[in-house]
Amino acid sequence: MQKSSVYRLLAPGPVPIPKKVLESLSEPALHHRIPAFEQKLQYCFSKLKEVFETKHKVLIHTSTGSGAMESAIVNCLKPGDKGIFIVGGKFGERWAQMAKTFGAQVVPFQLEWGESLDLNAFENFIKDHKDAKVVATQACETSTATLFPVEEISRLTKQHTQALVLVDAITAMGCMDLPMDAWNLDVVVAGSQKAFMLPTGLSFVGISEDAEKIVRANPQPRYYFDWVKELESYPKTTRFSSPNSLIVALSEVLRLFEEVGMDAVKTRCRILAETTRLGAEELGLKVFSKNPSSSVTAIELPEGVDGQKLRSWLETEKNITVMGGQDQLKGKVLRIGHMGAIYNDDLLAFFDALMEGLNLPEPMEFKHHLSKSLFPSLEYFA
Amino acid sequence: MQKSSVYRLLAPGPVPIPKKVLESLSEPALHHRIPAFEQKLQYCFSKLKEVFETKHKVLIHTSTGSGAMESAIVNCLKPGDKGIFIVGGKFGERWAQMAKTFGAQVVPFQLEWGESLDLNAFENFIKDHKDAKVVATQACETSTATLFPVEEISRLTKQHTQALVLVDAITAMGCMDLPMDAWNLDVVVAGSQKAFMLPTGLSFVGISEDAEKIVRANPQPRYYFDWVKELESYPKTTRFSSPNSLIVALSEVLRLFEEVGMDAVKTRCRILAETTRLGAEELGLKVFSKNPSSSVTAIELPEGVDGQKLRSWLETEKNITVMGGQDQLKGKVLRIGHMGAIYNDDLLAFFDALMEGLNLPEPMEFKHHLSKSLFPSLEYFA
Repeated sequence: MQKSSVYRLLAPGPVPIPKKVLESLSEPALHHRIPAFEQKLQYCFSKLKEVFETKHKVLIHTSTGSGAMESAIVNCLKPGDKGIFIVGGKFGERWAQMAKTFGAQVVPFQLEWGESLDLNAFENFIKDHKDAKVVATQACETSTATLFPVEEISRLTKQHTQALVLVDAITAMGCMDLPMDAWNLDVVVAGSQKAFMLPTGLSFVGISEDAEKIVRANPQPRYYFDWVKELESYPKTTRFSSPNSLIVALSEVLRLFEEVGMDAVKTRCRILAETTRLGAEELGLKVFSKNPSSSVTAIELPEGVDGQKLRSWLETEKNITVMGGQDQLKGKVLRIGHMGAIYNDDLLAFFDALMEGLNLPEPMEFKHHLSKSLFPSLEYFA
Repeated sequence: MQKSSVYRLLAPGPVPIPKKVLESLSEPALHHRIPAFEQKLQYCFSKLKEVFETKHKVLIHTSTGSGAMESAIVNCLKPGDKGIFIVGGKFGERWAQMAKTFGAQVVPFQLEWGESLDLNAFENFIKDHKDAKVVATQACETSTATLFPVEEISRLTKQHTQALVLVDAITAMGCMDLPMDAWNLDVVVAGSQKAFMLPTGLSFVGISEDAEKIVRANPQPRYYFDWVKELESYPKTTRFSSPNSLIVALSEVLRLFEEVGMDAVKTRCRILAETTRLGAEELGLKVFSKNPSSSVTAIELPEGVDGQKLRSWLETEKNITVMGGQDQLKGKVLRIGHMGAIYNDDLLAFFDALMEGLNLPEPMEFKHHLSKSLFPSLEYFA
């Protein structure tokens, strides 16, 4: 197999951008204080609420997802406040570290990387910390490609505490059901370069009414990420210069979402994830996570395989970017993203390359499972 | 005169983006941890140092300019530290407010909006505040289109205090000489949607060795904007996900800068600014600022003219966006930007529309001054 001239980006973000969205990025710049732009921004504000399934507010920050994670911390917690942080990977660690940095009393609910969250253990844990002001979790921990049971975490939190439920949905929103209001989620964080299929640079935060009350009374010093000040401009405009091109592109993505429907957007991720797991299993490879996600899959590599070398080889020789493991998973897994404008051919090319890289024979029936017939609805982001 | 179908963006940022840069924005997404991307990022890091005229470090944040202004505050000041803030407009006020928010003792050096800074008065002022930890100034105060004498401010600061010199060069870097090292500037802040001719979403901070030492010892809580942590990744990559498309476009801008040379880039702004002032004066209109800038010009409107209506009329009827006055200047001035891919035709169209909007006769010789012969070097951003 020759090196392909097509670059295939199969990472858990950033992801391939649909053609129409790419085109919108090269439209001449609009000023952010003119009606033609503000209409697009207001459309984004309105449609983001539909994606988040909330009647409350969804703000836009000019930042990466980590900026929005920080904004959740500095708006919802003040120094000394107790926060329960579910820590089952790199991003759980990051959120807990942020909270410590800004003076919160962090109580980690620690999980083995890749393990499912045990709801009984979690319930007992929060019963010991009824004074917690927040319970923070990833919806999908990107470093391990593991889902946490957000609905049940929220239900137990509300049952036993007064805490706000903070959800890092950066690698989840738009890939799976995560209805903010129905599940009583107080703060939901998302980022542009994931299911929103945009370049990196925007982040989104949904804020419940309960959260807004606490945020308004919170004396924690903050400026750039101050939701109280940002809400003074919302939903007419943004407080600071809007990221003009990214907002125009976001409006195009949200129009695409509207056109095909969020169910189809989520189904697309789910089918790609299921097919990836099926493919891995047929090759005799294990899926790392005990509770795998529709947004990203971590495939365990056989003993003796250097995952870092394999990842580089895929990139250098096959022009395919997947991610390796981070920290304790370094070299041990490959992480394949299912968000953005990924097509059947991309997944087929990845598995062909993986078989070559691992020197595995192609199983009978394998290509059948990956054939186009299983992807009836994938072409609509073309 | 009919409504033009060409949209002309003549604001002090965001600005029109050159065609080649727009095209680079619609290239397929690259992942930020692959060599092809990191090469572009490293090129940006290296070339930004040339634009800032520094041998020190220039970091990139995913944020608006205000985010970078906050990063300067939280990295250089700790609660209780005294900071002298030159306040001569909206952005001086904003920077001082940020510093107050994060616990600094702010001593404003207050100027009338649009006035020149009196260096004798400033020198006497800082002699009374020798314990200041920072002296912060705009290079160009965007709200009044006024330059402050950064070189002399820095010299006097270093002569009388140990303070770091912080410069908001958001509407200045790339439009005028502002050599960071030669003028002993410690922190210099810039933004993408100004002379860098990009969409809004990136900001840049140059950090001197003296500043870096103080920043490394500063206990002020910070995470997203923590330069100490960011420097661990620099200059290989960024700490958080790089804003992939904007960095690719930045590399294209910096390549353009290299191609034409920074002198030509600055001359371009200066010629547009001088021609705008000349045009205004020939129409009998005053330039608002006592010390006008090459990046943006504020034109005072005649008594009785509603500037907000005129600005809207220019936009709605003439498809030309300029900015009005902010806060105390609301309705009293128009602000015309000179950065980005602006051409002779844009300035001519603006003055034609302005004469129509103000019902002014065209002065003899007027068009001559605005003719192409005065713009020998403007076409290179086409």
